[in-house]
Formats: sequence, structure tokens, C-alpha cells
Amino acid sequence: MKTAKARLTGNMLIAQSGGPTVVINQSLVGAILEAKRHPEVKRIYGARHGIKGILSEDFLELKKESAQTLNAVARTPSAALGSVRKKPTADDCVQLFGILQKYNVRYFFYIGGNDSAETAFIINEEAKKVNYELRCFHIPKTIDNDLRENDHTPGYASGAKFVACAFMGDNLDNRALPGVKINIVMGRHAGFLTAASALARVYPDDGPHLIYVPERAFDLEKFAADVKAVYDKYGRCIVAASEGIVDKEHKSIAAAFIREVDSHGNVQLSGSGALGDLLAGYIKQRTQISRVRADTLGYLQRSFPGVFSRVDAREARAVGVLAVKSAVTANVDGSVVIRRKPGKKYEAYFELVPLISVAKETRQMPDAFISDEGNDVTPAFLDYARPLVGDLPRIGA
Amino acid sequence: MKTAKARLTGNMLIAQSGGPTVVINQSLVGAILEAKRHPEVKRIYGARHGIKGILSEDFLELKKESAQTLNAVARTPSAALGSVRKKPTADDCVQLFGILQKYNVRYFFYIGGNDSAETAFIINEEAKKVNYELRCFHIPKTIDNDLRENDHTPGYASGAKFVACAFMGDNLDNRALPGVKINIVMGRHAGFLTAASALARVYPDDGPHLIYVPERAFDLEKFAADVKAVYDKYGRCIVAASEGIVDKEHKSIAAAFIREVDSHGNVQLSGSGALGDLLAGYIKQRTQISRVRADTLGYLQRSFPGVFSRVDAREARAVGVLAVKSAVTANVDGSVVIRRKPGKKYEAYFELVPLISVAKETRQMPDAFISDEGNDVTPAFLDYARPLVGDLPRIGA
Repeated sequence: MKTAKARLTGNMLIAQSGGPTVVINQSLVGAILEAKRHPEVKRIYGARHGIKGILSEDFLELKKESAQTLNAVARTPSAALGSVRKKPTADDCVQLFGILQKYNVRYFFYIGGNDSAETAFIINEEAKKVNYELRCFHIPKTIDNDLRENDHTPGYASGAKFVACAFMGDNLDNRALPGVKINIVMGRHAGFLTAASALARVYPDDGPHLIYVPERAFDLEKFAADVKAVYDKYGRCIVAASEGIVDKEHKSIAAAFIREVDSHGNVQLSGSGALGDLLAGYIKQRTQISRVRADTLGYLQRSFPGVFSRVDAREARAVGVLAVKSAVTANVDGSVVIRRKPGKKYEAYFELVPLISVAKETRQMPDAFISDEGNDVTPAFLDYARPLVGDLPRIGA
Repeated sequence: MKTAKARLTGNMLIAQSGGPTVVINQSLVGAILEAKRHPEVKRIYGARHGIKGILSEDFLELKKESAQTLNAVARTPSAALGSVRKKPTADDCVQLFGILQKYNVRYFFYIGGNDSAETAFIINEEAKKVNYELRCFHIPKTIDNDLRENDHTPGYASGAKFVACAFMGDNLDNRALPGVKINIVMGRHAGFLTAASALARVYPDDGPHLIYVPERAFDLEKFAADVKAVYDKYGRCIVAASEGIVDKEHKSIAAAFIREVDSHGNVQLSGSGALGDLLAGYIKQRTQISRVRADTLGYLQRSFPGVFSRVDAREARAVGVLAVKSAVTANVDGSVVIRRKPGKKYEAYFELVPLISVAKETRQMPDAFISDEGNDVTPAFLDYARPLVGDLPRIGA
């Protein structure tokens, strides 16, 4: 019988999913350390590589790990339990739930993005069907910052800090050796990470001079005109473009380029440098500017050790703690979300929402964060992102 | 009349050349601060964008800058005066020397690689021809670490630290989401920077598992076999490949790939992601491994703020100071080189060598640093590189 007072006793299972971040292990460790405080939680299983490890019953026992070891893990980038890019089928979910029953799992925590929330939701529904007492929690994580209900998500601010630092350095590099430089930034559907490049600006003529996000249709002609205008003004131009930029029919620019190349030469262009190189080639051809280069910031954005936001690390820990605490002591299910109090000074608070409300769909940048021309961010975005990212290296000061 | 005692009085000109580093401004500032100590040095001109700025007489006056401002510049990545990729012609050198005479420049310092040493050498020869008293110094700088006579060069250790950190993070990312990951590292002719990826290893199965440098012929068949062997053993494989890898006829692998594509489809592949993508495509096709990714570390290696080696910053400062001190007080010309004392504990010292001895040719990795199979580094390389790079972020500890 479930009441607010009767605490559920049994084992706990925790897993990580999707692209790693440099603070995802803070959430893992927060959850484990909190669980160790509650006698209701018997064994603490960590599944290796998310639901793949659950399906194959590949579990680590985590209760015996010392706080010292766990805190070291928390400071280590990438998913310590291993991750997976797999969205379970309906059949998988039935099987997953069967394994949870087999191991007497009463507390299930899945750290990840919207797909992970959906997985937790479906497993929870399976449990309800047969009146199996199970507390299911989704713990948010994504550098894309695209989870609904959240002001921002754990992992984003650290990725944003890496991006801002990368553009700071690249801007100085481009000042020294002028030309057009295009940097491709992660973010398939949301431009938050690409937008963070704007934090790199210190002086009025600093790059990035142009920022393209997936929320606005990308037009090649307009792009070339934008670059030329900046180049004519400053003698150089730094571009931040999201890997997920799309044309006005919502078709991926990267895919369009690759299709075109395929029809000509059957070239394998599967790989992460393609979009940047092709945009650079286009600018070279259209503007006759001779020095045009592209870099794709790549996996460093989510894994580079030592570059992280303190706010991010603290909040990633907090959402892990709160998920376990709520599951055990309040006997509820849900997803922990991060909200922000109105006002000039940054202050966050946490709430619980139903699993379904962050599952499936993602969110994009609000219009107020994107300039009218669609090639830059607004001061409102900078006000939003700055307190999350925190101090950046000081340049020329 | 030139004697060891008679100090030359006149103006000083300093400039920066080639690819920036995160510590090149330490050398610039070391030179300026030292020059300010000597009354023989009247005006201190900084030429913008190397010899381009000299030829166009685009000078900044630097004597008025405060120590506080200069020290802030020293901590800022990339060439503060601006850089240039231009090797002067014989005519240029005559013109350059004419401008030095016009501005009564008696002390000329050029911070850069072997081309910069050659430029300084030629200008010096021009001055000698007409008995114009001029002290010419080359101040070493290159992340490629390929200057002759030097144990290592300023800029290398900081670039190496970035590369090591990048591979540390990427190794953790690849553990979480296994597959083949190929990272392309800078270094057209020398593999030192690519080799530094080995510093990322903490545990025996850590990547990079394979390291390919330009000093050994790169064979695609052997590469695919190497990757497959590692993948079969660990279920994943991280590769560090230099952008400058060549086949047994010393032809660039990147160029070979691009030629092939050109003959088929006339595709513009000018851009920095091409080699990685093409190697990834090749592995995918040859091994049937499904998850194969490539990143090109790009300009971040030489410009990322906040990631630098303390040893590197200190030595970059020291070579700038020593060049000016030697020119003014010892009345000599030359290039400052960094040597290492034999013994377990790292200790460096500086010497002066004739300009010509570091000009023109570059050096490559010694055989003792490359494994017999040609796909890894040796412990001797790690002993060489570790004290230069210094502490790395602690992983899982």
C-alpha cells in the first residue's frame, strides 16, 4: 500500500544515457551518495551503458564505493557507467521492467535527455499496470540545453564555457592571421551552445561576428553576403554555425551539401568535419576571399577535462541528490527541473515535474534570444547565459 | 667601431611571425621589458603582422606601455602584434633593411620559426654588407617543436598540454560510447604534437591506442589492420594522426585522398576536416565497424586560453629577455636555443647559436621516440615530454 509515509524498501538502479558531459558524473555521484544515506535503499546497482546494460544485466554494485572514490568520479568528465544511444522499443520496455522486477529494483534513476525521460516514463507505466511499486526518476543532462520545462540543463553551462573559450582563442588567432574562420558547434536542434560563442566577445570588433542557429532558416546566399559585409568592415570574419543549421524547408544544410556531392562523385563524406569544410569552400568560391578556414569543435565540447562551470557542477550534483531524496522520502516519480528566480542576481531552484512533461519533444531557443536578422544573439541571451558559464579567462587585461 | 664594450645606441624593432601560440606574447613582453631597462635602446617599435608591417611601416610605439599592461598581454594567447605567413624574397629583404636604416633600428628581434630565423639572417647579412651596425636576433616559437638545435621550443609544451587534455577527455567519451575515434593533430613535418597525445594515458587500456606521425610512412592497409586489432581487443580504438602523415613516397595522405576525390567528382575539399573524415570513411569501409568518428583538433591547439604549461610560459618569457640582453650587453647576433641538462630532474638552460643554424631546415622526432612498429611513441618520448607539459587534470583519482 502506497501512502506518503510508507517508505518503499528495495534496491536501486541507476544508469546514464546519450552524449556525455563533463558534469554528468556529478549527478551520478550525487544520487549514489544520497542513496547511501537512506536505509530503505538496499543495493545500489549501476547499469553499464544505460539500458543496454540493463537488458544484458551488466550491473556494478556501487554501495561499497567510498565517498572519496565517488567524489573523484564526480570530477571526471564523461559517463563513468558508460552511455548508450538507444531508444528502447515497446518490447524492450517490457523486458527492462522484467529485469527491474527480477532484481527487486524499487528505485530507478535514468540520467539523460528527453529520450531517457521517455524511457523512464514507459517503464513507470509498465510498473503501474501490474501494481509493482517502483519510483522512477529522470535526472536531466544535455549540453544541447534542449529539455522542456528547464531554464537550463546540467552539462550545458560547461559545454558553453568550452565554446566561449574556444572562440576567445580563435578570435585572437584570427586577429593575428586575418581571414574568414568558420567554427561548427554542436546542437542538432537547438542553438544554445552555438549562441554561447557570443560570450567570447570582449571588444566591439571581437568575433564571432556571425552566429547561425537551427532556429532560423539558413540561406547560403545570405550567408555569403553576411560574411562579405563583415570582412569588408573588419578585414576578417569569425562565424559560429550550429551543426544543425537547416534551410527554409527544414532540411539539414550538411545533408544537402553531402547529397550534392554524392550525386557528382559518390564521395563518402560521413564525418564531422564535412559541414565546416563545405561552408568554407562555398565562401571561398563566392567571395574570392583567399584565407577561409573551418574547424569543427567536435567532442571536446562535451569532454574536455578541466574546463567546466562551477554553477553547472553544483547543479548537476544537486539534481542527482534531489531525485533520490524525493523518490525515497516523498515517494513520488518525476523529473527534476531547474528553474530560475526572476531578478538581476542569478538564483536557481529545483522542482519536480511529471516524467512525460520533459519526454519526447525538445525545446529550442526563444525568439527573444535571436537577433532580428537571424545571424546573432541578443543581449537577453547574454544575460541568460553569463551567470551559468561564470568567469572566463581574462583577455588583454 | 664595434668592440665588446661599446654598446650600440638606437631604436629597436620587434615582430612576430607564423602560427600563433598561447605563450608567444610572453616572449614579446620579455623582450620589451628587458629593452626598457637599457638606456641604449631608444624607441621600441612593434611591427604589425611581422614583415608585412615592416614593409608597410606599420609600427606601434611600445616603450610607453606599462608593465601591468604588458604582463596582461603576456598572459593572452596569440600574437598581440599580429602575425604573418610570408617568407620575404631577396628583394623584400633589401627593402626591409632599408626601412630598418630609415628608422635608425639597431636592434631587430623576430619571434617565429625557422623561416623567421632565415629572415633575420638575411637582414643581418644585408647590414654587414654596408657596415651598418645592427644586432639581429631570432626568438624561437613553434608549437610544431621542429626547430633545430633546440631541445624543445616555446609554444610546444602548451600545445602539447592541450592535445593531452583533449585525448584524456576523448578517451573517457569513447569509453562511454565505444567506437573508433580518429583525431587529427597539427604538425606538418614533425610528430611531436601528435606524440603528446600519449600523455593522456592513465590506465593500460586508455587511448590513444595508435599514434601516427609524419616521420614514418603511413600505409592505409596497415592502418586498417592496426585499428581492427585494437578494436578486437578493447571494443574501441582511439587514433592520433598527424595532419602531415605521408606515404612511403613522402606524399601527403591528405593530398592523395583529395586528388582521388578530385578526379572523381571535382569536389572542393580545401578545409581542415578532410583528412580525418576520409580516414574515418576508409576505416568504416574496410573494417565494417559502424561507429567511426573523426575530429580535427584545429586552431584550438595553438590558441585555447587558460590551458598552458607553466614551464612553457616561463621559458617563452626567458628567451625574449635573453635575446634583448645579449644583443644590448654582449653585442652579438643569433638565435636563443633551449637545451636540457642530462639527468632525471628537468632543468633547462639557454644558449646562443648563429642565426643560420636554426634557419631553413626543420628537425623531426628522433627515432628513439617512435615505436618499432611506427604506430606509437616510446617511454623515452614520455620522459622527454612530461616535464615540459607539467600537471594534467586528474582523472578518476
